[in-house]
Amino acid sequence: MAELTHIAASGEAHMVDVGDKIETIRSATATGYVRMLPETLALIREGNAKKGDVIGTARLAGIMAAKKTSDLIPLCHPLMLTKVSVDIAEDDALPGLRVTATAKLSGKTGVEMEALTAVSVACLTIYDMAKAADKGMEVGGVRLLEKRGGKSGIFRAED
Amino acid sequence: MAELTHIAASGEAHMVDVGDKIETIRSATATGYVRMLPETLALIREGNAKKGDVIGTARLAGIMAAKKTSDLIPLCHPLMLTKVSVDIAEDDALPGLRVTATAKLSGKTGVEMEALTAVSVACLTIYDMAKAADKGMEVGGVRLLEKRGGKSGIFRAED
Amino acid sequence: MAELTHIAASGEAHMVDVGDKIETIRSATATGYVRMLPETLALIREGNAKKGDVIGTARLAGIMAAKKTSDLIPLCHPLMLTKVSVDIAEDDALPGLRVTATAKLSGKTGVEMEALTAVSVACLTIYDMAKAADKGMEVGGVRLLEKRGGKSGIFRAED
Amino acid sequence: MAELTHIAASGEAHMVDVGDKIETIRSATATGYVRMLPETLALIREGNAKKGDVIGTARLAGIMAAKKTSDLIPLCHPLMLTKVSVDIAEDDALPGLRVTATAKLSGKTGVEMEALTAVSVACLTIYDMAKAADKGMEVGGVRLLEKRGGKSGIFRAED
Amino acid sequence: MAELTHIAASGEAHMVDVGDKIETIRSATATGYVRMLPETLALIREGNAKKGDVIGTARLAGIMAAKKTSDLIPLCHPLMLTKVSVDIAEDDALPGLRVTATAKLSGKTGVEMEALTAVSVACLTIYDMAKAADKGMEVGGVRLLEKRGGKSGIFRAED
Amino acid sequence: MAELTHIAASGEAHMVDVGDKIETIRSATATGYVRMLPETLALIREGNAKKGDVIGTARLAGIMAAKKTSDLIPLCHPLMLTKVSVDIAEDDALPGLRVTATAKLSGKTGVEMEALTAVSVACLTIYDMAKAADKGMEVGGVRLLEKRGGKSGIFRAED
Repeated sequence: MAELTHIAASGEAHMVDVGDKIETIRSATATGYVRMLPETLALIREGNAKKGDVIGTARLAGIMAAKKTSDLIPLCHPLMLTKVSVDIAEDDALPGLRVTATAKLSGKTGVEMEALTAVSVACLTIYDMAKAADKGMEVGGVRLLEKRGGKSGIFRAED
Repeated sequence: MAELTHIAASGEAHMVDVGDKIETIRSATATGYVRMLPETLALIREGNAKKGDVIGTARLAGIMAAKKTSDLIPLCHPLMLTKVSVDIAEDDALPGLRVTATAKLSGKTGVEMEALTAVSVACLTIYDMAKAADKGMEVGGVRLLEKRGGKSGIFRAED
Repeated sequence: MAELTHIAASGEAHMVDVGDKIETIRSATATGYVRMLPETLALIREGNAKKGDVIGTARLAGIMAAKKTSDLIPLCHPLMLTKVSVDIAEDDALPGLRVTATAKLSGKTGVEMEALTAVSVACLTIYDMAKAADKGMEVGGVRLLEKRGGKSGIFRAED
Repeated sequence: MAELTHIAASGEAHMVDVGDKIETIRSATATGYVRMLPETLALIREGNAKKGDVIGTARLAGIMAAKKTSDLIPLCHPLMLTKVSVDIAEDDALPGLRVTATAKLSGKTGVEMEALTAVSVACLTIYDMAKAADKGMEVGGVRLLEKRGGKSGIFRAED
Repeated sequence: MAELTHIAASGEAHMVDVGDKIETIRSATATGYVRMLPETLALIREGNAKKGDVIGTARLAGIMAAKKTSDLIPLCHPLMLTKVSVDIAEDDALPGLRVTATAKLSGKTGVEMEALTAVSVACLTIYDMAKAADKGMEVGGVRLLEKRGGKSGIFRAED
Repeated sequence: MAELTHIAASGEAHMVDVGDKIETIRSATATGYVRMLPETLALIREGNAKKGDVIGTARLAGIMAAKKTSDLIPLCHPLMLTKVSVDIAEDDALPGLRVTATAKLSGKTGVEMEALTAVSVACLTIYDMAKAADKGMEVGGVRLLEKRGGKSGIFRAED
């Protein structure tokens, strides 16, 4: 039966012991979006076409945040990520920007929190850089798309 | 006309000079949610009724993350927050948990990023603590509810 | 003969080279206490019976601090902890709270500093949360109880 | 009546709002010790006479830790310290080292946690640097000696 | 006569007390360069013309590092910077890239270390991003150009 | 042909995937200097003869900074260093101080950025501690001396 592994038998929060887990190649991909006014997307696109700064800054912020995951999420283990990538695409239908992040390592525990943290901080950075023009932006759809490696094998989000 | 204040005239990202802004009492409130399976909410509620750990851990993670905002968001100014509070409520209709955070300071620049960062990290922490039971959870609706202080006065999100 | 391994032959502080040490399962358990007025313990107990906040907050602070050990202690190596747990118990005889922390990893160097850091920061957090009621509290008895793994084998504190 | 200011009316941990407190010069002095074998103290003294490294390293670690207080203690406010000093003295009667730290700022909230954090981390650093010779050392007597500034005026520890 | 203000009368390192200094607008500008092979500069320029990534990444790294100055430099005070800007220009004569950074705040102590840290970390980031092509690059000429505000008035580097 | 490995095919900055690289013993040594007035060097030497503080503080700052490299340089991987050493020597011909740092680990990626970061931050710390006497100091000659391990074998700087 499902259980909350961070809750000890006695009910207190603890960091799960992963010492006995197998060291395998693990990866996780997460996604999310920032919904904004069409004018805001146009402003970013224009700036982006010329300089790439909103998107470039958010991408770096996401990559750097993935490395801080165990500092932000109280019960996450410190990990030695071997790869982090963040992609940001314009979506006129939203309208807004869609962020996708992948984290990877060879280790004893999964990296979904690292991928989700990269997505969240990239989205927050987009908000920060465009908020002078649009305070009503919304971050949403932040979820795990795929997870590989470890005992539980492959997870793929249903659509 | 609206403009992206983090983009310099020449198009490069920069930290806006707030040296000449007035020091006023500023506050911001943001919100967001984690949508989950009804069974996951039941597991958290049960644990919570007994120990409060998922919700208590996420609340602290949000408060601590607000203090790291300028470390996470590349162009945010370091700020001396005078208050951060994070509230987390169960919502059976969602189903899931709703997070609301308020940040406050007496300073030269707004604190909406601090409130939004607190909400985002509290949501990620909920995901982390319940992910053994439910990998399909989704963080959404992360947005600014209200902002007070500074030249632009009061902002309130339309509903 | 005993020697201070952090002091180089020439006498300057340095980070010991652990590259040639064997990778084994290593764990360490440390303890400490916060002595307080009986009324302060009663206040915490009451709050704790209802919400668990002083103790819950201190436990999380200790776990998170263990992950920052190499950032706090100048010559400690960065480590990938596989487990950290912090237990806090009331002690009417003290009177006060007793904190015990265990850190574990599979690695080349011991984790006693991680366990001791978790205990110290949990104790400081208890002080912080109760200081409005009692400024005379004292943190004491912070020491290593047990250490396992590595060349030197098992260490157990004499009582 | 005494109350735990970090516990909200509803019992949840929160960061106290200090926005309305007066900005005054505030300072705090804390103390603590590391008790060790006489041989360990002799080793440190000898090293110290020649190079000052154990004591010099611990002093710096304490100063740097004071600046991280709000990152370590969940509900502490970020502060702009104007001064931190750490003194470490040999005590043959203990036997061991006594650490005293003073923190100071002009601000809205007290700095006792900064002084106590400086003392604790300086003591942990002494442990780290001498632990190859003596695993039985104990950190104790960590308490506030004096606090000045703010509404509550001067606090002095009874002896 | 000149003296080293970080050295106490008794000779130990300490954080200078700036509590009594006047709060004025202070700014500092620093510069530095990365000297590289002409081919390396060409590679960066080409990449830059298309995406701006080496230069854009280094600029952000410099801005973010300025905010970490008091965490890196042991005796620096934590400061609330109101502005940081980093400019990076190609220099065919060097050949290489020249970095200039300005930090600003209204406070009690100067910001030259923040400007110098921004320059140094931007230079290291350039090295990191181009090192696959050229391991012989050199960071040099890192110095203060100008400093304004505070008791000592304006400093301008002689050329 | 040489290429910038941090630039993806599509031109965006990314963290290189080192998951498939071999785990070998890797080390790197870097150097740099702070050039200063002869009087400034004399002041430091005098203080140093008595207390060793400028040099001792800079050495520790360099060691601690090496552990923060992946936090400072956006696309660096988090690493578990097994050794960091920093040596600082007086040079009357410069006149000034020469800093040399070595970093070492058993891992999948090189540690030249860790050695270079240690050198840079040690130099900045020297500047910070002596700047009251001499604002015209210059940090220069920061470069890689030697790199061992990994596919590319040994690199030695030409002189």
